[in-house]
Amino acid sequence: MNRVIESLLSHRTIRAFRPARIDDAQLDAILEAGTRAATSFQPYSFLVIDDPEILEDVAMYNAPIAILVTIDVHRFGRYLELHGASKPTDSPFYLLHAHWDALIALQNVVVAAESLGLGTVFIGRVHSMDLRKPLGLPENVCPAGLVLIGHPTEPSPGRPRYRVPLEAVVHRNRYREPTDEELEAWYGRYKEMFDKHYEALSDEEKEELAAEGIENGLQRFCHLEGTFFREADEATLRNLQHGGFHVADWGTTA
Amino acid sequence: MNRVIESLLSHRTIRAFRPARIDDAQLDAILEAGTRAATSFQPYSFLVIDDPEILEDVAMYNAPIAILVTIDVHRFGRYLELHGASKPTDSPFYLLHAHWDALIALQNVVVAAESLGLGTVFIGRVHSMDLRKPLGLPENVCPAGLVLIGHPTEPSPGRPRYRVPLEAVVHRNRYREPTDEELEAWYGRYKEMFDKHYEALSDEEKEELAAEGIENGLQRFCHLEGTFFREADEATLRNLQHGGFHVADWGTTA
Repeated sequence: MNRVIESLLSHRTIRAFRPARIDDAQLDAILEAGTRAATSFQPYSFLVIDDPEILEDVAMYNAPIAILVTIDVHRFGRYLELHGASKPTDSPFYLLHAHWDALIALQNVVVAAESLGLGTVFIGRVHSMDLRKPLGLPENVCPAGLVLIGHPTEPSPGRPRYRVPLEAVVHRNRYREPTDEELEAWYGRYKEMFDKHYEALSDEEKEELAAEGIENGLQRFCHLEGTFFREADEATLRNLQHGGFHVADWGTTA
Repeated sequence: MNRVIESLLSHRTIRAFRPARIDDAQLDAILEAGTRAATSFQPYSFLVIDDPEILEDVAMYNAPIAILVTIDVHRFGRYLELHGASKPTDSPFYLLHAHWDALIALQNVVVAAESLGLGTVFIGRVHSMDLRKPLGLPENVCPAGLVLIGHPTEPSPGRPRYRVPLEAVVHRNRYREPTDEELEAWYGRYKEMFDKHYEALSDEEKEELAAEGIENGLQRFCHLEGTFFREADEATLRNLQHGGFHVADWGTTA
């Protein structure tokens, strides 16, 4: 294949960084690559975070830099206002549309950074982080994605992580329902991993979980995810509201 | 810079394709590159569409192939069920999380395809397309992104499209409010374009718009977008519901 596909295939998430800062020209090239992703009027902003105090809040690993991408319907909205126009954006369709534009711009940032030998890690919980005050986000701007970038501590980050095989993910013209045997083959290693975590618990912890009907690794994984989502939902809806997406009203208007 | 960044910087949307089909080995490499994007348990599926009848429904331009990426919480969900577990996914936080994973996988597909000299065009209205029947999408699977891929009719697709300058999109540590002058400089060319479209209308069309308070190009653009969003919203919410995201209930549960 070619250098681009090689670079994509060798992606690995990096969570340990050297303190070295990122070259300004490289950072500009990375951000420029971000803005070249396909888009409809760029309804997003990047916030480059290198202030140590803010970094401490947003970064779960000690990277020298974090790049937040936000959905931003404020900037263009202000321009339209200057000319007596206003673009309606409080729409489920437009939320997904703008989210798409923001996230693929951020993916270009990641691909560009990795091609320069930098390491990256996405912080998935960003949708539920309260960044309005620390970053001074105006109304109609809300978090869409967050990545930490830095020089990896180890030059070679090892083999790419497990993915289910291509035939699990790719369908031709119609969705093909997998067999139980296929599912076992694709996901069995996750079960082993979660069972190991479960087995490592103390008897007391296991009894507590059993009281909630949780008796194996996969059940425990589901329980943890569910608890996390429930906690994250309220903050996510608050962020969306601040971003101009009044989700609470969508049930009644549709 | 390097080949990867060069490739990202030279992105152009392509809307005219030669009928030539895409090489199978190339398509596999493209899809493999898609699945290497960062993810949490790959909550997505790709549907590769080359059936001419289905293509006619989904493709607005005559590309030999379309790749739909769906949010798919069905596949892993079925595996969990086999082991008496179930992962709660009907959550605003998780919708954005899974949407992110799906879209950056699709962006890798685009980057890989372009690196091979193929042309691509995103079909943004996919969130509101009814693809359940034609593609046999089961419950808990819904459209997240769609791209058409093919060999461009012209070898060199010309210069990359206009983007607002980097300083319009990039903020350092805090959101910086632009001045009115900056906004005029960044977006003035859009105003010119929309005014040209408006001026090309007949007197009768202009009168009809004036009756709705629309008297310039930007106002007309906003009106058209708003109408489109309103039409797309209902179908978008229906798709999300089918995908397991019961948005209509979120206002009451949060």
